This record gives sequence, structure tokens and C-alpha cells, in this order.
Amino acid sequence: MAKGIIFNRMLAIGVGLIGGSICLAAKKRGLVGHVLGYSRKLETSHEALKLGIVDECIAGPGDSNVRNVDVVVLSIPVRQYKQVLTQFLPSLPPNCLIFDAGSTKSDVAVMLNELEQQFPGLKSRFVLAHPIAGGESHGPGAAVANLFEGKNCVLCPLEQTSASGLKKVENFWLGIGAKLSTMNAMDHDEMFGAVSHLPHLLAFSYVSSVLGHPKGAEFMKEGGAGYRDFTRIAASSPEMWADIFQNNSAALLSMLGMFEANIASLRSAIESDDRATLERILAQASGYRSNWKHN
Amino acid sequence: MAKGIIFNRMLAIGVGLIGGSICLAAKKRGLVGHVLGYSRKLETSHEALKLGIVDECIAGPGDSNVRNVDVVVLSIPVRQYKQVLTQFLPSLPPNCLIFDAGSTKSDVAVMLNELEQQFPGLKSRFVLAHPIAGGESHGPGAAVANLFEGKNCVLCPLEQTSASGLKKVENFWLGIGAKLSTMNAMDHDEMFGAVSHLPHLLAFSYVSSVLGHPKGAEFMKEGGAGYRDFTRIAASSPEMWADIFQNNSAALLSMLGMFEANIASLRSAIESDDRATLERILAQASGYRSNWKHN
Repeated sequence: MAKGIIFNRMLAIGVGLIGGSICLAAKKRGLVGHVLGYSRKLETSHEALKLGIVDECIAGPGDSNVRNVDVVVLSIPVRQYKQVLTQFLPSLPPNCLIFDAGSTKSDVAVMLNELEQQFPGLKSRFVLAHPIAGGESHGPGAAVANLFEGKNCVLCPLEQTSASGLKKVENFWLGIGAKLSTMNAMDHDEMFGAVSHLPHLLAFSYVSSVLGHPKGAEFMKEGGAGYRDFTRIAASSPEMWADIFQNNSAALLSMLGMFEANIASLRSAIESDDRATLERILAQASGYRSNWKHN
Repeated sequence: MAKGIIFNRMLAIGVGLIGGSICLAAKKRGLVGHVLGYSRKLETSHEALKLGIVDECIAGPGDSNVRNVDVVVLSIPVRQYKQVLTQFLPSLPPNCLIFDAGSTKSDVAVMLNELEQQFPGLKSRFVLAHPIAGGESHGPGAAVANLFEGKNCVLCPLEQTSASGLKKVENFWLGIGAKLSTMNAMDHDEMFGAVSHLPHLLAFSYVSSVLGHPKGAEFMKEGGAGYRDFTRIAASSPEMWADIFQNNSAALLSMLGMFEANIASLRSAIESDDRATLERILAQASGYRSNWKHN
């Protein structure tokens, strides 16, 4: 999979678990020449420098190094994209590619429509990407070079995305070991609203609701393997997931509506001793999940 | 932990994953002399015999061997207890101990109250037990001798349970490697309604609701590690869990009510862009779950 250098000078905006792992992977595979790092917190970019994640830190968009990067990797909360792009775009070279790694896509597409008026051509050089990888740990210290190996990365090219830019970003993700799939931003958000965002919402809500019981915290100490696995994702970052829930609220709340209707059917089947309905719903779920295989 | 023989002749009613594992563990540790096995399906008890789980099969309560057992282990769906006990009790010796391994307890206590009139003294020799162990697989073929090692077993003695009988059953569970905790049947059902039954109900309902989406089955193929762990328990036995949900409906539906209220707060916080409430609920759950340790 040795591809040679794809980008000469990469600027990583955000150097935590995701951004840091992208840098480490790209350096290890020899896909980048020089890597610049930026974080809102100076100590974070310094930590990334010390860990060999980046070759050099920049203090902000005013740094002269920004003027000759050929790619920007955005690995920051999606809600910060607009402000950060507005700050950096005036200093970035006009043909510099940009790709992100965020968990929601339609909201970014809308934001790019708005910024396009101020920065014409932005949409042609922006590639929406979402690597299906991560974890509960945060920060540069959690970054590892093999985070994306064998993992799926979903790309959501816009109509205006340039074919050559898209090809480079595809080669970059393939180069760091990811598998690619492509879909539009709406389909992406619907799919991940269903298979990732809703389970996170339910897991957070379940733990929070048991904590609302006077003996709930004590009860949960007795949780077994089922409890452990069901609630693992409830330990995830509240800030990051509040962002995701707000940014993908339409698809998420629509799937939540289907869940609410289903749980209401189960409640009513239990209340009315309707064994047939109860077993039918459980059997449907159990049948699907027993045959499910991890992609 | 070698204790010597606790029971000379044990009758296992139900020889699947749980019953079969109890027999294998007791034989391996030398806690029982002779083990008889009964299953509603003759082929199941024959399979248990072939696997060395039991020493001998009996065809039913009419078998003369039933008259000299000193303990019965009930490892069948809780909904079948009453019928099976009514069949076997007339043939069992009057001082024979009985313990079970079911997931709900208050319903069994109520059933014992009813049977006590027909079989006076039954409550003094019945010990309610619930080992916190199991899995998605079923049948004698899934039984293993170490299933209970290091696992918790909850005992719910009734007011009438004889101290000597309780002591024997405690020594038996300790002898096969379990840790013991004791609580009353109501507390047990409230606790496991919260930490086991509700997560199962939510996991079944989640998978079923996504399957209700036209593209749901396709979406779930893209599920990552979070999806995998969150939904693992949705592969469990529909029959067994329909039983549990019906048998523990009061405690389960009460906890479900707290969950429904919590998810309604989250929905409303997302709909109204109430970031503070959203983050407060997520942070509460994440804070608790990050510090949780598997017992």
C-alpha cells in the first residue's frame, strides 16, 4: 500500500484522538511531507509536537506557514467548523484541499453553502469524510497510527467537489488503511442516526434514568456482562455527543419516533398480557441480531 | 473449596445451559453423589446423559427414583414452575430441598404461597436462587462446568425457609465457585428489572424499531463496535425474555416509566436547542459509567 507522498504540507486543525491518529498514520505510511498542527489550546498542539504527531505547531491563521499548505484536515467538533474556516480560509492558498472527519454531514453541507458566498469555490475543494472509528478516550495521547486500519470511511462528495480533489482524499484514506464507501450527506445522516446516534442517545438516557431511582447507582453496581456492554457507549464524551445530537437532530428524532412507537407497543403487550405480540417483536429482533456480522 | 458431598441424589429438572452447567459443576467439585435428569423433551435429557451432565434420565414424576432424591434443581422457564412442581411434589420425599435458578423472584414467591396450601411445608424447603450468569446459547450442549465461577448468585430466602436448608444451598453455590448475596424477592426484582430486564427490553426494541425502517436492515450492516455491543443482548432467547418481562412486569414497567420520562426530556432538549439540559443529562450518565467497574 506504499503510495508515496500525496500531500507535501498538511495542516491538522485539531490534533486529538482522530486528528492525531490521522497524522500518525499518514506519517507512518509516508503519505505526507511536513505536518503542521493547530489546536485552540496551545498546550494540546505542544503535546502533539512532543508525541511526534506533528512536525511543527502554528499559533493561528496569521502564521506564515499557513500560506503554503496543500491540504487541511479538520478534526474538531462540527459546531466549530464555521468559525475556524472563516478564520483560516483568507490565509489558505486558493487550491488547498480540505477534508473533515465529523460524524454528521448534512449540517456541514448547509454550512458550506453559506460560506461558499464568502469564499467562492470552497465547495469544489472540500471533501466530507467520516471515518467509523474512535473510542471513549480523548486527546493527542490517545492517538494511534493504526486507528483506521480495516475501518470504514464514508465519503459524501458534494455535486461541486472536484474529481481530482476527491481522488486524492480517497487515496489518502485508502493509504492509511481504511475501506471506503460513498453516499450522499442525507443518506449518511439517516444511516448513522439509526445505527450510531440513536444507540448513544438510548444508552445515555438509560444510565441517567436509572440514576434517577433512589437506589439506582447501587443497583448498577450489580450489573453483569449484558449491562456492561449495553452501557459502554454511555461513557462517551458528553460535549461531542451533544453536538452530534443537535447537528443530526432531524434524522435522529425521526428514528427516535420509530423507537418510541415500538417501545409503546412492547409496554402495551406486557400490560395486557399479549404474549403473541411480545414474542413476535422479540423474535424479530433476536432473529436479525443473531445473524448479524460485524462489518 | 473441596467440601465433600452435600447432596446424595440430585434431580435436575431442566438440563439446558443453566441446569446442565449446575450439574457439571457439582459433579466436577464432588458435591453430589448421583445426578438424575428430567426434561420435557426426552431427546434433551438423553443429550444430557450422553454429555455426562447427568448419570441417569427419568421419564417423569412416576419414576420410582424420584422418591429418594434429597434435592431438586429447577432450571426451567419460571412460567412452568407451578405445573412441574404440582406434578412432582406428590412423589418427592417430604424433606427434599428444592432450589431454582430463575431471573425473577416475587412471582415465584406468590406461586409458592398458592402451592403451600396444597403442599404444606413447601416454603420451608424451597430456596429462591438467581445466578447472574448465562449467555445467548441454549441447551445441554452449551453447558460448561465453570459457568458460575466468580459469578454472583443472589439468594432470596423466604421468611419460612429453613436455616439448615438455606445453609446447604449456600454451600452448594459457594462450592461451584459462585459468590453469594442475599436480598428479599421484591428488592431483587426491582434491582434486576433496572439493570438487566430493562436493558434487554430496550435492546430488543431498538433493533426491532430500526427493522421497521425501509432501509433499516441495510443500515445495521454498517454498525460499528458501539452498535455491536449495545445490541448484543438483543440476540437472546425471545421465549425466555418474554417470560421475564411478563413475570417482572411491575418492576420493569416502573423503571421503563423513568426511562420514558428521561428520553422525553432529551427529545425536548434537542427539539428546543436546550444545550444546557442536553449536556447535563449526558454528563451525568457519562460520569457514572466512566467510573463503573464490573463486579
